[in-house]
Amino acid sequence: MNSTKNFVQNENLSVGYVETQYYTFAKPPNELKLDSGEKLGPITLAYETYGKLNKNKTNAILLCHAFSGDAHVAGINKDDGSIGWWDAMVGPKKAFDTEKFFVICSNIIGGCKGSTGPSSLNPKTKKPYALDFPVITVKDIVNAQKCLIDYLEIEKLFSIAGGSMGGMQALQWVVSYPDMVRSVIPIATTLKHSPQQIAFNEVGRQAIMSDHNWNNGDYYGKTIPSKGLALARMIGHITYMSDISMKEKFGRKIKEKKQVFKFEPDFEVEGYLRYRGDSFVKRFDANSYLYITKAMDYFDLLGEKKLNEVFKNIKTKFLVIAFKSDWLYPLYQSHEIVKACKMADVDTTFCEIESTYGHDAFLLEVEEETHLIKHFLNKIYSEIEE
Amino acid sequence: MNSTKNFVQNENLSVGYVETQYYTFAKPPNELKLDSGEKLGPITLAYETYGKLNKNKTNAILLCHAFSGDAHVAGINKDDGSIGWWDAMVGPKKAFDTEKFFVICSNIIGGCKGSTGPSSLNPKTKKPYALDFPVITVKDIVNAQKCLIDYLEIEKLFSIAGGSMGGMQALQWVVSYPDMVRSVIPIATTLKHSPQQIAFNEVGRQAIMSDHNWNNGDYYGKTIPSKGLALARMIGHITYMSDISMKEKFGRKIKEKKQVFKFEPDFEVEGYLRYRGDSFVKRFDANSYLYITKAMDYFDLLGEKKLNEVFKNIKTKFLVIAFKSDWLYPLYQSHEIVKACKMADVDTTFCEIESTYGHDAFLLEVEEETHLIKHFLNKIYSEIEE
Repeated sequence: MNSTKNFVQNENLSVGYVETQYYTFAKPPNELKLDSGEKLGPITLAYETYGKLNKNKTNAILLCHAFSGDAHVAGINKDDGSIGWWDAMVGPKKAFDTEKFFVICSNIIGGCKGSTGPSSLNPKTKKPYALDFPVITVKDIVNAQKCLIDYLEIEKLFSIAGGSMGGMQALQWVVSYPDMVRSVIPIATTLKHSPQQIAFNEVGRQAIMSDHNWNNGDYYGKTIPSKGLALARMIGHITYMSDISMKEKFGRKIKEKKQVFKFEPDFEVEGYLRYRGDSFVKRFDANSYLYITKAMDYFDLLGEKKLNEVFKNIKTKFLVIAFKSDWLYPLYQSHEIVKACKMADVDTTFCEIESTYGHDAFLLEVEEETHLIKHFLNKIYSEIEE
Repeated sequence: MNSTKNFVQNENLSVGYVETQYYTFAKPPNELKLDSGEKLGPITLAYETYGKLNKNKTNAILLCHAFSGDAHVAGINKDDGSIGWWDAMVGPKKAFDTEKFFVICSNIIGGCKGSTGPSSLNPKTKKPYALDFPVITVKDIVNAQKCLIDYLEIEKLFSIAGGSMGGMQALQWVVSYPDMVRSVIPIATTLKHSPQQIAFNEVGRQAIMSDHNWNNGDYYGKTIPSKGLALARMIGHITYMSDISMKEKFGRKIKEKKQVFKFEPDFEVEGYLRYRGDSFVKRFDANSYLYITKAMDYFDLLGEKKLNEVFKNIKTKFLVIAFKSDWLYPLYQSHEIVKACKMADVDTTFCEIESTYGHDAFLLEVEEETHLIKHFLNKIYSEIEE
């Protein structure tokens, strides 16, 4: 099997140059009724597609991005030359083989990468929504995606896959539109956010809202709450890595000291976190941070239901993937998904990958994931194509 | 065995009303040469003692407090009525039995509970030190404590115990003054801070320094950086608990909604963290937060040494205690202490306590700790008293 490096370096294995497309709900309903009862519209979704939809429209795969992701999952962006966030997994002969499948990825609502979110213009005020943007849930995010899939005239998705919050969307799809999902691949995710997960998100939100430049969300065109947003991201980064991956990456290595100020970073890990925080500020909107983390925290597929009821009568086939060193979305949460499937007699494969990368593993363990996902997809695809 | 509740409720088991005392290094050297090469002085240490020092001065136990602790470890403070932070463990017939032992606890330098720290007056400027306070290390903290022990005319401590950063001090004592420590009880601690531990401390420091009221440390007599300090404490609290203890305490329970503002806390865990953050601001100094976390991050007893060299020729007897759900100071760090002891042929007992409380367990698992510590201390004490 090719290594990650080869996937990226070999041009023949890339989807090549891609352009982000935009779909705005143009005809009624040009607005979406949200979980909260509020309405949002018009809604634009930024999305990309790779490969070709076959005649019977049976080969479409939807990839759902995680918290800070976007629609650009593979290839090279025509405008800025950036490589897709899961390029190693999406392309000719890769895990999501674009010679065989039609792959779709859209930016979520509430985001800031081309889809309607708090930084978008509010048609009523002609100013950015800011905190006038309604509270959204993972269900709302999926309902908006469904409009895109309808627009693409796909009646049944061959598969939906995603890690972390992408996995929540995948699971929500199965519950909201069971007949539209032939197979699903939830990776490093959960049926519901735990108090610890909520707590980490809450301190991120507090970091942003404590920044006096946040100004109650009204900072567009003014100074942005960059310190708060960077801090939120620093906290996030600790949770995405593992104790051991930090040790492997940094140890207790001391940065070269050039400044005498006492609380400048001494250790490499400190400098790294500050760098990651600062670079995040350039590409992400603070209010989107608030709205999307809240959507994750509200996520609870179980609610008052018993575990055996969540996936009752579901025909979707599951491949559940989790990583041993992921302490943000620990193994037991994936076990719970599997248990819910098994109790409902749903066809489920579970794989626990030995990785030291922590939660980030879903983006990094390409070789293992490719092996699992390729086999899973090909097997089901061969069944329907017979 | 009595439960925690009984320890506190039964007045006969309390050391009663206590008063904090202050010792200022009065005669030369009235200053301390620090690890950094800088000098600090005069130094005042706030301390409390319980029980009576015996004639031979063989029954003194030093308790070292954790990050945000103080000298008031047991009994009821005469001035404010507050109960000591480890009252359940210190008193007549308790783990540290004050009918038998003379127990000492002092606030660390760099702190803000009566010992010299960044909020103390700088004798040179007659203003609070703020960032003119020198960088300190755990070794410096211990060297200052040693002046207090010398002043109390104790040549050899019967034992030193402490959890978390208290454990680091205890270990440092053994290395710095091996002949002064008959036995040691490091609890939920480490030989050196890991990159993950440094990272969590660093985001706490960033939270404080990002608060515009921090003002480069110069906020005394002005508006304090309360938002940043509260945020730092919130992050800390997540790391002190465990995933499971948060689940047991909060679940996904929703707070009663009284406000309509979108990012007010929905979940109990959010409200709890905000409460803990806000109440911390009333009792702790932001600059002390910076200095003490830095001292923890610098802590590395191993350095360039091999593991078998750390405790070479040490005669001190060890009781190492760790907690299964403590992910901030994980088990493997206590295993490393034990391994270092065993490799140096040091008399060592190790106990791993089954607890769901996370790092907080060292303050809460009173029954288990009492059992272990009482037995350990009595056995050694009976040997020397024979």
